[in-house]
Parts: sequence; structure tokens; C-alpha cells
Amino acid sequence: MKRIFLLGLLIVVAAPLPADEGMWTLDNFPSAVVKEKYGVDLTDTWLETVRSSVARMDSGCSASFVSPNGLILTNHHCALSCISQNSSAKNDLEANGFLAATAEDEVPCQTDRISVLIETEEITRQVAAATAGKDDVKAADTRRRTLKRAVQDCEETSGLKCESVALYQGGQHWLYKYKRYDDVRLVFAPESDIAAFGGDPDNFNFPRWCLDMSMLRVYEGGEPASTPNYLEWREEGLDAGEAMFVAGRPGRTQRLLTVSDLKFLRDTSIPHWLLRYVELRGRYIQFAQTSDEARRIVHAPLQGIENGIKVQRKRLDALHSDALFAQKEQAERALKAAVAADPVLAAEVGSAWSTIERANETYLGFRDDYIFIEGGAAFNGKLFNYARTLARAAAEREKPNAARLKPYTEAALPRRKQLLLADRPVYPELETLQLSFSLDKMREFLGPDSTFVHEILGRKSPEALAAELVAGSRLADAAVRAELWSADWATIRASKDPIMRLALAVDDRARALRKRYEDEVEAPVDRAYEKIAKALFAIHGTSTYPDATFTLRVSYGAHEGWTEKGSDVRPWTTLAEIYPRVTGEAPFRLPASWADAEKSMPGGTKFNYVGTTDIIGGNSGSPAIDRDGRLVGLIFDGNIHSISGSYWFDSELNRTVAVHPEIMIESLRSIYGADHLLEEMGIPER
Amino acid sequence: MKRIFLLGLLIVVAAPLPADEGMWTLDNFPSAVVKEKYGVDLTDTWLETVRSSVARMDSGCSASFVSPNGLILTNHHCALSCISQNSSAKNDLEANGFLAATAEDEVPCQTDRISVLIETEEITRQVAAATAGKDDVKAADTRRRTLKRAVQDCEETSGLKCESVALYQGGQHWLYKYKRYDDVRLVFAPESDIAAFGGDPDNFNFPRWCLDMSMLRVYEGGEPASTPNYLEWREEGLDAGEAMFVAGRPGRTQRLLTVSDLKFLRDTSIPHWLLRYVELRGRYIQFAQTSDEARRIVHAPLQGIENGIKVQRKRLDALHSDALFAQKEQAERALKAAVAADPVLAAEVGSAWSTIERANETYLGFRDDYIFIEGGAAFNGKLFNYARTLARAAAEREKPNAARLKPYTEAALPRRKQLLLADRPVYPELETLQLSFSLDKMREFLGPDSTFVHEILGRKSPEALAAELVAGSRLADAAVRAELWSADWATIRASKDPIMRLALAVDDRARALRKRYEDEVEAPVDRAYEKIAKALFAIHGTSTYPDATFTLRVSYGAHEGWTEKGSDVRPWTTLAEIYPRVTGEAPFRLPASWADAEKSMPGGTKFNYVGTTDIIGGNSGSPAIDRDGRLVGLIFDGNIHSISGSYWFDSELNRTVAVHPEIMIESLRSIYGADHLLEEMGIPER
Repeated sequence: MKRIFLLGLLIVVAAPLPADEGMWTLDNFPSAVVKEKYGVDLTDTWLETVRSSVARMDSGCSASFVSPNGLILTNHHCALSCISQNSSAKNDLEANGFLAATAEDEVPCQTDRISVLIETEEITRQVAAATAGKDDVKAADTRRRTLKRAVQDCEETSGLKCESVALYQGGQHWLYKYKRYDDVRLVFAPESDIAAFGGDPDNFNFPRWCLDMSMLRVYEGGEPASTPNYLEWREEGLDAGEAMFVAGRPGRTQRLLTVSDLKFLRDTSIPHWLLRYVELRGRYIQFAQTSDEARRIVHAPLQGIENGIKVQRKRLDALHSDALFAQKEQAERALKAAVAADPVLAAEVGSAWSTIERANETYLGFRDDYIFIEGGAAFNGKLFNYARTLARAAAEREKPNAARLKPYTEAALPRRKQLLLADRPVYPELETLQLSFSLDKMREFLGPDSTFVHEILGRKSPEALAAELVAGSRLADAAVRAELWSADWATIRASKDPIMRLALAVDDRARALRKRYEDEVEAPVDRAYEKIAKALFAIHGTSTYPDATFTLRVSYGAHEGWTEKGSDVRPWTTLAEIYPRVTGEAPFRLPASWADAEKSMPGGTKFNYVGTTDIIGGNSGSPAIDRDGRLVGLIFDGNIHSISGSYWFDSELNRTVAVHPEIMIESLRSIYGADHLLEEMGIPER
Repeated sequence: MKRIFLLGLLIVVAAPLPADEGMWTLDNFPSAVVKEKYGVDLTDTWLETVRSSVARMDSGCSASFVSPNGLILTNHHCALSCISQNSSAKNDLEANGFLAATAEDEVPCQTDRISVLIETEEITRQVAAATAGKDDVKAADTRRRTLKRAVQDCEETSGLKCESVALYQGGQHWLYKYKRYDDVRLVFAPESDIAAFGGDPDNFNFPRWCLDMSMLRVYEGGEPASTPNYLEWREEGLDAGEAMFVAGRPGRTQRLLTVSDLKFLRDTSIPHWLLRYVELRGRYIQFAQTSDEARRIVHAPLQGIENGIKVQRKRLDALHSDALFAQKEQAERALKAAVAADPVLAAEVGSAWSTIERANETYLGFRDDYIFIEGGAAFNGKLFNYARTLARAAAEREKPNAARLKPYTEAALPRRKQLLLADRPVYPELETLQLSFSLDKMREFLGPDSTFVHEILGRKSPEALAAELVAGSRLADAAVRAELWSADWATIRASKDPIMRLALAVDDRARALRKRYEDEVEAPVDRAYEKIAKALFAIHGTSTYPDATFTLRVSYGAHEGWTEKGSDVRPWTTLAEIYPRVTGEAPFRLPASWADAEKSMPGGTKFNYVGTTDIIGGNSGSPAIDRDGRLVGLIFDGNIHSISGSYWFDSELNRTVAVHPEIMIESLRSIYGADHLLEEMGIPER
């Protein structure tokens, strides 16, 4: 049997040993399968170590504690926003790397926040009870209010930070309770040239040579936090074929989507996203050529969208695969047939698929308006984002908590405030480029005859308007933002800042579009997926995993390569193999500190490696863990085939890519002289 | 009955009055249908007028004679290459427009060539006889040689310029015999701001206000050519609802493609094209912002790719329409069933569709290599193009005519030479941008581990290599190119010019990929389409039209609007309506010469209008003609729905967009003071 797809197998009677598929919640981890397949008996202690040592970076990554003093290991690209916020033309931490000699030298990551899961609580019944008997729109509204209240109650009673999580596309609702660290500082970062060696060309490729690591530290009360639960290193890493585990926060998979939703992604969402971002990429690249400073300031945003472009391109390729659609269609047909065969399910669930199809048709009629006006695609850049946050926060704070937009509830406001007040550099040239680009795309997508476009542009070109708005705004100043954050709604409404005025001017229409989306798309679709989940549970139980939701999950697998066009790919690389790849020009250039690496580190030092574990974006920074709970690597990527993991798991080809402990420890020791960190992590001198 | 699709109707028994569908050859024009539907009896004289007055611009447009002295009317965008070649920072004809006061002032269009069809001759039998009984690869080779020989014989015996044309995807082969004009000069061009008023945002939109016209003149022996057959103006244009005809050279439709080929376009060809050109668009736009001169030199290439992007985007939208695929699948099923029901056809044709499907799978395996290496997508810019032409011309001239690559046969060489030797400006900054961009995309699509990529880039970045190649090459100098054009193969092979060396270095691999494409894709696919055409003819006769092939076609229809989202679109615009649209900023800016237009021309002057005629890219510059053979407009675009015309004709929505004679004549008179041209065209003074 070639490729095995567990979700497909839901509908197949006799299953062989399953593939290493799934991003599992701790309460539903398939320990029996792992034991049977790998002979590994994971204890409750092992699972508890995972829960307490593995952290979420709220900016969208994973991480783990690696010392009792709040020291954190994650990827360089996960710390990139912190690194670039702390960089300037004179002190370029992206280019030159960073190592704090002492705790006093560690620099604040103003927009970072770390959350550690403490406990979870299922509230599916409460939600179901509240929404029962209501029509879709009323149910959706009630569901939102119920969840906001539950989160608020949770925070008040537990003293923890709470979030609601919908698993199985709303088939289950949970409260996730976190300990949260708001004070995060940068401890160590290598140079971008080695962290992202190979740049965009090598991104998602393997074999690979990236030291995509960084170290952060969480503080409490101005002191390094005490983190008694942390992972210990196993410097030599995994043996070939050995069982491997990944614990982290996979962001989003869409494996349970209906065929209609997958087609919508293929025909509309992904192509439209690509059409915008690929052009922006071209503008960034050309902008970078205007000066060294331009190159520096656009480096991080460019890296971000290039990664996104590769992901979306490969997702589109996956959605163009006949095999994928055949499998999805077959699974959907089988589930529909099972539903139809059960009169109770048929009556309750039967219409769910056509509901989603109709909602997609409805959405298509106003999607461009929604994306550009409410989604903000017309107004790229930090400044508009600040303005909208300020305008909405002031308006929403006047309402009762459960009636607010979710990002402005009491539980969510601290994060809004943190992101708003962080004193990050705003580069007017880049802001103007971004805003002018997005206004131009607004005109392209909504059309030059759109009333909205006329109102926004008037008689100005996108370039002229963007330049004028950016030049006239004072929102780049964190002190100005802080003042406005404390202001009331009347003051905000009267602001004369031109970007505040823009945000205020579009807000009614933006909110109306959001309401339309919620009522005409989200409400029926959420209810439909709830029904489909009910059918799945009724027919198959919860023997599978929910789609990824940026919450804690554990994957299992083995340290193994794959076969690419008939050739076996060895599952690891070594230091010696990087040199033939070095051209001396970006992105195939080694930093100066690595000039003597060939002498100072053994050529056999393992660099990057792969495994069969099931991961997705958001897993970046996740620790790879062995059967004994030791740290055996740092996930930073997947191979090119892993991108189709958004929609299905192809066990033959999908591979996790990790930084090997050997190169991390070796370079900390020999290149960066970070002996104090090695000591803190309990790594013995050589 | 709503939308009517003639190709779909092929398989339906009872047909209502057909839609205005089809780009018909003169020998097969549906005069009976036109008579029945519009009461118009087109005479042989009418058809003969069309043949002799309508011309092809070999660069890819249509045109017509409008005086007995070689005066030609076409679009501004069709003359744009000539206009921009004759522009400089000091004398910017794109920005400022151009009017030759006398014949002496008319400026050469060095890369333009005009062809007038004299006669056609069917050679299907000859080709069939030559290829009969041969396997696909052998048949393809024989077909190519047979056609090259037929063209050569035709030129020698007729004294005309001959081309072979495959109609119905190879179901018929023809010789088209032309009178050719190599000396083309620019007579008149308005300013870009009014020619392309609304720019990319308004492109393919309607209502519309573009004076997208220009005038050229053909010369023979240094004197204006005598062109006794030309179109006379009907200044007031068509009445609403009146029958309208378009004669021109539609470039390419793909309405007879199989479902497998349409999927290939949807899933591979179009997305990949967009991914490259949308990024290049971003680079062009950002480059334009670096200086006024940068903006000037990138204007024409940017306009070109923006048009292409809009076309490809809307084609993709069309291919994402479920209705389109349902109709195509139904038609294909019906044709297959008809074939299966006839034992003779079944044996001969039955496998054609699966052959095409398999060929597409094969092609997918090396398409990126083919597009980048042989297709030249890795090496954008004029310089590489010159180098490849020089290298191939020298190598091919050593071979017998029938064994050469088609662009280097005796019949085709004059055009190669004209394009190569034209003394057009080469802008090193733009060349470097284009080459560096394409080398970067080569690395992205072929992958950083591709041997070819390593050989081309070595240890250099795309930017560094491109800059070095452009700086080191002398091919920008037309005299250098002329010298190399006369050189023999040994001299060319020894060239030290770095871009010549690059072209020579990749040529073996490029040719091997071409051979592979010809043998593994083209040969079986051509043969399969030949079989499908045979089935179509056997079942339906030639009661339909062939896909467009950049040869003379006539479409019929009426001067009528359409209904857009429930509102009727009036089928014309007037001058007065442009002013509210003018913002003063590009692309909604009027040129200085139009400052007094509001006073000097009546507000009711008709500007642009639409009709139901079936057109496609390549029809640009076509005359609109009335029942009496008079000129009633100048085709320059279609509405946004016309783009799906590549794949089907949607009679409800697809509309031709034309410049109205009133605005052309009025502005020549009142704005441009071109009384001598009006007089030459026989237009009386007001």
C-alpha cells in the first residue's frame, strides 16, 4: 500500500498500520498506536513534561524552555520581528547577530508574548445548550456571546489567561487556560546569513543548512522567570529510524474542509492572495535595490511574504492534484451516504454540504469588498493598523464585554495594547510603498467605478494619496499612540490625524461588511460544520484528531528520509556539505564569524535533519523530543511536500525539517562563545 | 433562452437563431445566417473590399487602409512599439503625441511590417498524403517539412509572400498569400494620456473614453504606396441596433481545446505565467518611481504586461467557471459518443482524447525546463533575444531550408533580420532589471539544486550576473548586430560577447528540449487534434468556424449594449461624460492639447461604443464596417466579459469595444489640426 491517509481511512473498514499522521491534543493522544508502531510507551510524565516545557509565541510560533531560568529556544525567523525592531542602520542585529553577555544585556522584544498551557476544559455542552433551537444567525450571535462570557468567567475564576478554542470545525468547544509572560527579551540570535542560509530559494527545500535558532528569555517582575520544567538536551540527537515527537502549536490545517470549501480556496482565495502578494514581492525587491538602508528595512517583510508565497503556491499545486480531489470527493460521498442511511442524522445533518456551497456563492458576491475594506487589504502598513486599533478599541470599550468584537474583549485587549504601544520603527518610505500598493490593488479589484474607491481616492492617485497620508500622520510616534489609547471615543472621533480620519471614515462600511459576512457566510457555515462534526463523531467516534488551531498538539513519527524522483534522500546533512554550496553572494553567503568554521567545528557535525512527523506552519520553533522527553532538535520548516499537509497527509513524502542539536551546541560553543548559555542549559564542556 | 453557445450547439439537434458567434474565414462566411438575422445581404464585392482594405500588422494587430495613398488606421497601442522606439527623454512621442505635417516628416517604424491577404489555397490533401501511415513523430517531422516546402514553392511561383496556416487545430492546412509592405512610417499619434485614458484600471472596462487611434503609412520604393482599395468613413457611425461587422486578424482562441488541455491551462500554464509577470509588474512599477526617465522607459513594457495580466486573470476566472467546464465536458462526451457509435471513426479517432491527456502528463515533467531554457523565460530582455537570433540564424542557414527551425526558413528570415537590425533604444538599467528578474525566476522554478541553474549562475547572484552581462555586451549597438548577422557560423561560435556566449552555451540544451517537446508533446497532440477534427467534419461538416489563427476573419453582430448586474449598459459614450472622470493624475489625466476640448468639440460627440461582434486579442486595430462597406469605428478592446471568449462565446455579455468615428474625426480636426489627413481621407470640411 502506498500513501496512507488517515482521514480518508475513516471510511475504510480494514486499516493497515496507520501513517504517522495527526496533530493530536494531549487528552486524545494515540499512545496505543505509538506503542504498536514504535514500541514506545509514553508515560503521563512524558506528556506532562511536554505540556509544561513547550510554549506558544503568541506572534505565531512555538518554543520550549531549555533552562530553569526562563531561557527559551525558538527559531531565528520566529524572533525576526524582535530582531528587526531592535535593528538600525548602525546596529543591524539581523545582519550581525546578537549575544547578550549578561542578563542586563538582553533586549526587550516589545511585541512578543509567551503562553504556557496549564489546563483545558470542554464546554461543548454549554455552547450547544445556549444555541439549541435558534436559527443560524441567532445561534452564531449567541455562540459568540457565550464564548466571550465563558472566557471572561474563566479568567476571573482561574486567575489564568483564557481562550476559547473550537476543535473539529466547531464540533467541540474548549477553554484553554494559560500562564502568560509579557516580558520577553532577546538573548541570542545568529546572523541572518546563516540562520536563513539559502534564503527563499532553499526555503522548504532539503537537504538544507540553516542555523534557524534564537534564544529568548521570559521575565517576571523584572527578573528571569523561574521555569522548573524545561527540556534537557540530547546532544547527539536521534538515531536513524528512531521514534521522534514534535510538540508545538501548529497554526491551521484544513483537512476537514468540504469539497466546496476546497474549491473556493483553489479558485478564489489562494489565486487572489497570490496576485496581490507576488506583485508586492516585486515591489519590495526593486525597492531593496535603491539603497543599502532600503535593503535592510525591507528584508524582514520580504522574507515574510516570500515564505507566504511559497506556501500558497504549493497549496495551490496540491489543490490542483486530481488525486487529492478524488480522495476528498470519495470521503465526502461516503460520509454523506452514511448520513443518508441514518434517518436521524439525515434529518439533522443532511443539508450541511449544500448550505456551505450556497454560502460560498453568496460570499463570492461581496468577497472583494470584504477583504479590501474590512480585511484591510486596501490599507497595508503599520499606520493604518494602529489607527483602526485605536478607533475600534475606543468604540468597543463603550460596549458590554460580550457585545464587543472579539479582539477588543477584556481578555484580548492586553495584546492589542502591547502591539499598539510597542515602540517599533516605522519607515515612512516603506509605509508609503505598502499603502500606495494596497490602494492601487483596491482600485484594481473593486474597479475604478466603485463608489468606495472614488470616496477614498477622490482625484488623487494611490501614490499621491499614500505619500500625503503617511507624511501627515503622527501615529508613527509611540507616545502619540499611547495618548490616543487612553482617549475616549469622542476624542478619537474628533482626531485630525489623516490616517485616523481614514480609519474612522471607512469603519461603518467595514463593520457592515463584517456583519454581512458573519450573518450570511459564517453563521450558516459554522452551523453546517457543527452538523458535519456531529455526523463524524456519531459514525467514527473521536478516533481522529481535529484540524490544527494554534493550540498545543503532539505529533509522532521517525527520523527518516524519503524517496525523491527515485533517489533516497539521506535524512540529515553535515557541516562539511555546506561549503560547496557557499557562493559568497546572498543568500548563499556565510557570515564573517563563520570564516574559520571549517577549522573550528568538525565537518561531520550534523546540521539539519528530517522526520516523518506531521507538522504545519506555527510549528516553527517546536522542540523535537525523544522517547525520554529529551530535546533532540528544533523544527524550523517542512520539505516542499509538507505544504500539501494543509489538506492531507502524504506519509510517503511529507517531512519535518529540524535543526540538529549538534550544530546548535557546536556553533554556540565554537563560533559564538556562548559558554554561559551552554552552562545554563546544563551542557557539559567538551 | 439565455446564453447561446454555437460550439455547444453542434451537438444539439434543433437550434434557435444562433448567437453572433464566430470569427469566420471569407470562404466560409455564414451569409445566410446574417441575412436571416439582420436582413443584410453581403455581396461578393463587400467581401472583396474587406479582403483588400484590411491589413495585418505583423507585430500582432489589425489595421485598414483609409486613403488611396497607403494611409493606415490602427490603434495607438498597436503603434506603441514604433512610438516608443522613436521617443527619447527630450522628444517623448508617447507623452506628447505626434503629427507629421508632410510626408517627409513621417518617421520610420523599424519593427513594423504590413501584410495584405491576396489569396488562399487549401493543401490539406497534400499534407495528409505525405504523413499517411507514419507514426506520430515521423508524421510531425514530415508535416513540418512538407509545409516549409509548400511555402517556399508558393513564394517562388506566386511572387507573393506565403505562410502556412493550420485551421481547425490541424484539420485543414492552407497557404495564405500576402502582399507585404516593409516600409511603414508613423503619421499621427495622440498623447498616451488620451489614447489610453484610464490606463490599466479602465482596460477592458466600459463605459470608456479612449482615443486609441494612430495613423501609419506604407511606402514602396520610397514613395507612399498606392492602395486603391480602402475604406471610406461614415462619420456618424452606426445606429443603435444596426448590423455591424469586424474584419481583422484575431490572434488566438482555444474554443476547440479538449477538457484535458483546458485543465492544463487552468492548473499550470496560466497560474505559472501570472506568478512571473505579476512579480515583474511590481518590479516595473517600483522601478518607475526611481526617476522620470525610468518612468518613461518602462511605460510601454509595463502597459504591455498589465494588459497581459488582466487577460490571463480573466481567462483563469473563466476556466474556474463550473458552467464553462460543464459545457465543455458535455460537448466532449457527446462527440466521443458519436465517434464510438461509428465503427470506422471509433477505430481511427477513439484514442485521441487520452493521447492528449497523456501528452500533458509527459509535458508536466519537463515544462519548467522547456519554458525557461528553450522558451527563454530565464533570459528576458532584448539583448539575449538578439543573441539567440544571431546564434540560431547562423547555425540554421547552414541547413537545407526544409530542415531548419521555422523562424529561420527563407520565408521567415526577412522578418528575423528586420527585428534584429532595427536601431531601437536599449536601456541598460531596464535590461539588467529584466535579465536579473528572469534569472531569479529560473532559480525559483528550476530550483537551486538544478545543474542548469548552477552552470548559469555559478557563484553569482542573478543581479550580479545580469549587471555584468549587460555591461559587457555590445549587442545594443545595431551596427554590431548587423556585422554579426552577416557572419558565418564559425565566427558566431567564436564570439566573445558575454551574452552571445550565454546564448551559445545554452543552445544545445534548449534545442534538445525543443526536440523533446516536438516529439513527446506536439507530435502526438497534433495528430490527435487532426483526428478530432476529422470526427467533427464527419459528424457536423464545416458548418462552424476554426479557432482564430492571426489570419483574416470576419465577425458579425449589432451595435448593442448588455445588461450588467441588472442594469442596461448604454452602447456608447459621449465626450461630455469624460470630464467627471478626469482627476488630473495619471491615468485619469487629459493631455494639455485637450484643455479646451470642452469648448472646441460638441459634448455630444460619440467617443467609444460597443457591439456584439465576436473578437479577441489581435483584432486590435480592426475596422468596424457597416453593411455598405463603410468604416464605422476602430476596434481597440473588448469588455471584461470578452476575455472568456478565448474559450467560449457568451452572447449575453461578450462585447467588442470601438473608438467612434465622431471622436476620431472631431479631434483630428479640432485638437490636432490634421486637416491634410482629413482631406486625404475624403472627409469634407465642416
